[in-house]
Amino acid sequence: MPKTIRFHETGGADVLKIEDLPLTEPGKGEVRLKVEAIGLNRAEIMFRQGKYLDIPVLPSRLGYEASGIVDAVGPGTSSIQIGDRVSTIPAFSMREYGVYGESAIVPDYAVTYYPNNLSAVEGASIWMQYLTVFGALIELGQLKKDDSVLITAASSSVGLAAIQITKAAGALAIATTRGADKKQFLLDAGADHVIVTDKEDLAKAAMTITSGKGASIIFDAVAGPLLEKLADAAASGAIIFEYGALSPAPTIFPLFSSLKKGLTLRGYTLFEITGDAEKLARGKQYVYDSLQSGVLKPIIDCTFPLDAIAKAHLYMESNQQKGKIVVTV
Amino acid sequence: MPKTIRFHETGGADVLKIEDLPLTEPGKGEVRLKVEAIGLNRAEIMFRQGKYLDIPVLPSRLGYEASGIVDAVGPGTSSIQIGDRVSTIPAFSMREYGVYGESAIVPDYAVTYYPNNLSAVEGASIWMQYLTVFGALIELGQLKKDDSVLITAASSSVGLAAIQITKAAGALAIATTRGADKKQFLLDAGADHVIVTDKEDLAKAAMTITSGKGASIIFDAVAGPLLEKLADAAASGAIIFEYGALSPAPTIFPLFSSLKKGLTLRGYTLFEITGDAEKLARGKQYVYDSLQSGVLKPIIDCTFPLDAIAKAHLYMESNQQKGKIVVTV
Repeated sequence: MPKTIRFHETGGADVLKIEDLPLTEPGKGEVRLKVEAIGLNRAEIMFRQGKYLDIPVLPSRLGYEASGIVDAVGPGTSSIQIGDRVSTIPAFSMREYGVYGESAIVPDYAVTYYPNNLSAVEGASIWMQYLTVFGALIELGQLKKDDSVLITAASSSVGLAAIQITKAAGALAIATTRGADKKQFLLDAGADHVIVTDKEDLAKAAMTITSGKGASIIFDAVAGPLLEKLADAAASGAIIFEYGALSPAPTIFPLFSSLKKGLTLRGYTLFEITGDAEKLARGKQYVYDSLQSGVLKPIIDCTFPLDAIAKAHLYMESNQQKGKIVVTV
Repeated sequence: MPKTIRFHETGGADVLKIEDLPLTEPGKGEVRLKVEAIGLNRAEIMFRQGKYLDIPVLPSRLGYEASGIVDAVGPGTSSIQIGDRVSTIPAFSMREYGVYGESAIVPDYAVTYYPNNLSAVEGASIWMQYLTVFGALIELGQLKKDDSVLITAASSSVGLAAIQITKAAGALAIATTRGADKKQFLLDAGADHVIVTDKEDLAKAAMTITSGKGASIIFDAVAGPLLEKLADAAASGAIIFEYGALSPAPTIFPLFSSLKKGLTLRGYTLFEITGDAEKLARGKQYVYDSLQSGVLKPIIDCTFPLDAIAKAHLYMESNQQKGKIVVTV
């Protein structure tokens, strides 16, 4: 029986249980993967804690991203065939599906091919990060080469993807990080400038970097009190994407700067892209092509074995990682 | 010597002084009006209090909107001529110009014609309200007939203009007001629905009115704690314009609803339109044509004589008015 990760109550990493559950068959429109690697996301930690947009139905599976080989297909599925090397797109609710385990059933529309030049570990590390950034910066933000993009939580996989996509467009990438220890890593990852927020005044530094104009696009996973500083760092007419809620503190709306500068504050999740067939098709094409050509390349921090799933979650919660944390199966 | 309103310190309505100041000549690119009527705006109260986007240079004139007859033109002015019947557009800073008085000098680009079917009192009551709404709803919000527009502070001149412009586009106008006393007035002014926020749950009422979809455009002058309720009343993918700061309380950013619904929160002021020649030209044309055809018609609450300017400010601060407060000269 395949090992499956589930939790029977919400809470800390120790609620994750490794269970031997019977192998099940995919239903209508579903496919089953023999999982090779699982990419971890902050969303899964929040879901496990009961603090995510979706509230789990207990006992609950979890996990958005896996790579693997298709080993069964249900009736009425699309072109996906047994033996295909694929990875999963977060186009489903974890209330219904989860990929943490040796075997995972997902809807066929959430399964796609990834380029051959990527390993299975890399294949499990692409869709969440690159589609999230594609949707915000390219699809909604219409990123151009004269943009200056301020990226918070820049050492996360999505933050690093934002640096790569910003640079691929020829724009200026300004990364922020709390401590100085990740500064060199972010420069190596392609950031043009790194602002260490524990030591520097964010708005002042951003204004200096942009010759007083401010950042034209801000891509923020943190929210909380940081948002007011981001508004101070924003250019006139800038757009600020809020795509996460890492800060536990309330987020104050920067009323006066938004009036003065005509700021757009845009709540955003990947599901705007994965839930829209046309946007998703554009995103998949962009990501696939850019990975194949080497313009984009996922940065892997480290891998854990499946048995160490709780440890892997704790490691993500420690915020030490620089890039994607992957579980190998 | 013409009577001129100035204040020498920021504060309550009693800081407004009626002074006899020498008649001055317009400088380069300026014109002078013999003022007939002055339209009052909340902005002037905030400016007088030192709480506006611009901080006054003391002693300071004030006032954005006047109608009158041009009685002098400076060198290098455009097509405006002595004897022209015009009104002023808020396209300047009150740190430099103010129209409260018997005579007012303004930049020539802030002076324009208004339709002949309007009185001088009405002519002083159009540009702030209609250009503000034009910029948000039409220029940025791309108002269409299937939109449902939620309008807060709906009895203000800008709120009423929003009802009129929404109806002119064939869209649904949902007005909110705190007390029940203004409900019938707002229905008479064209609102399809009125939500009395002291008595009704705003989000629930908006959802009922829109058959569970929520408002697609929200036009809000209040901010403060109301913003979270507005986000609850918003449709998926809605845009919320924040164009004022009537609430003295901090404004919480509605993080989770904005993530879930993909909301756009847009800080906005009229100056985005008046500061952009093309947008202003489109706005002037739209407003002029709609006033001339009678599709739009300013609602005047009452008029005060110039000597009662402090009383007129106090009346606006009391929030009893339904429409524009005008001072006649």
